[in-house]
Amino acid sequence: MATLPKEIIELSEAFGSLPNVGPKLSARIALYLSVSAKDLAKKLSNSLEEVINNISKCNICGNVTNKDLCLVCEDDSRDKSIILVVEDSLDLINIEGTKEYRGIYHVLGGVISPINGIGPDDINISSLIKRVEDASIKEVILGLNPNLEGDSTALYLKTQMESVNPALSITRLAKGIPVGGDLEYLSGQTIIDSMKSRINF
Amino acid sequence: MATLPKEIIELSEAFGSLPNVGPKLSARIALYLSVSAKDLAKKLSNSLEEVINNISKCNICGNVTNKDLCLVCEDDSRDKSIILVVEDSLDLINIEGTKEYRGIYHVLGGVISPINGIGPDDINISSLIKRVEDASIKEVILGLNPNLEGDSTALYLKTQMESVNPALSITRLAKGIPVGGDLEYLSGQTIIDSMKSRINF
Repeated sequence: MATLPKEIIELSEAFGSLPNVGPKLSARIALYLSVSAKDLAKKLSNSLEEVINNISKCNICGNVTNKDLCLVCEDDSRDKSIILVVEDSLDLINIEGTKEYRGIYHVLGGVISPINGIGPDDINISSLIKRVEDASIKEVILGLNPNLEGDSTALYLKTQMESVNPALSITRLAKGIPVGGDLEYLSGQTIIDSMKSRINF
Repeated sequence: MATLPKEIIELSEAFGSLPNVGPKLSARIALYLSVSAKDLAKKLSNSLEEVINNISKCNICGNVTNKDLCLVCEDDSRDKSIILVVEDSLDLINIEGTKEYRGIYHVLGGVISPINGIGPDDINISSLIKRVEDASIKEVILGLNPNLEGDSTALYLKTQMESVNPALSITRLAKGIPVGGDLEYLSGQTIIDSMKSRINF
């Protein structure tokens, strides 16, 4: 890298700080933008400024928005009595893509992870507890990823929510065999979960 | 994606235009920068502006630089009688990394590729022909990738350079078995090349 101008090295380092972008790819991107694609560099720079200046979190659910409320929370046709709790806005987008769910959301912005130094106060939990104090909320669906951190976060949320609203129905998305999955290759735990949650056929 | 603010969609699309960045990764990056890493977004935006304003191509060889000449061309200790021709600055950086080569370079900024609509006039060829007219240039090493486009570009360059400087020595990097390669898995053409270029042991 010593042969590159400092501007390109700095750009490459900035790209290298992004998730899933390694040093080879970041150097290639930085050089591409410096030489072949200054128009795209300008477009990226402008888009970044737009995001920096205009994007914040929804006052209600924590989803990304360019207004006070996100597109889901400001939509009067949604069922405001059901809250689906997700880890981040990408999960929300994927669920919205199914066009099946008509309730609203709560975006935690992470999961409790002691190993990464993330405790309950570091993510968007206290506002969820406040939301479920309202008796108009009938159900909370926990849509966290089924792994150690997701499961323990779900358990923590259940305890907290039950203490402020004992009448609340708390559910979680079913664990089981994903569509297209192959029993031969699925983990033992997935098979155990799908046995436990089996339904009449 | 309809659930995302337009600023994030535009940023995601801009990232998606980069080489080797697919739609899933670009959405993840855009959301990450919008929510969790506005500092990094600012750093990226600033680095992009620096590159847009300060980076250009070396007046002599076409390598990236923030001055008139690149770091190699302005280095008086380099042997100015040998030119190594490469496709882009990343190839140059990798060769510089070996600390073996002490000559100078010529960066084409691409290879001739009729299928992609890239002809000889679209890359940095005419300036190379002008450079080799100078009798002080003794050797040109062709360091293009050994594939159809690299090989045909090399052949084109050889014809052009010979016509302006018949005394010029024109060489190319040896094709053969890469260090760590395994005869069992190498292509037939690589084995044929390594047979043709075999040396006394």
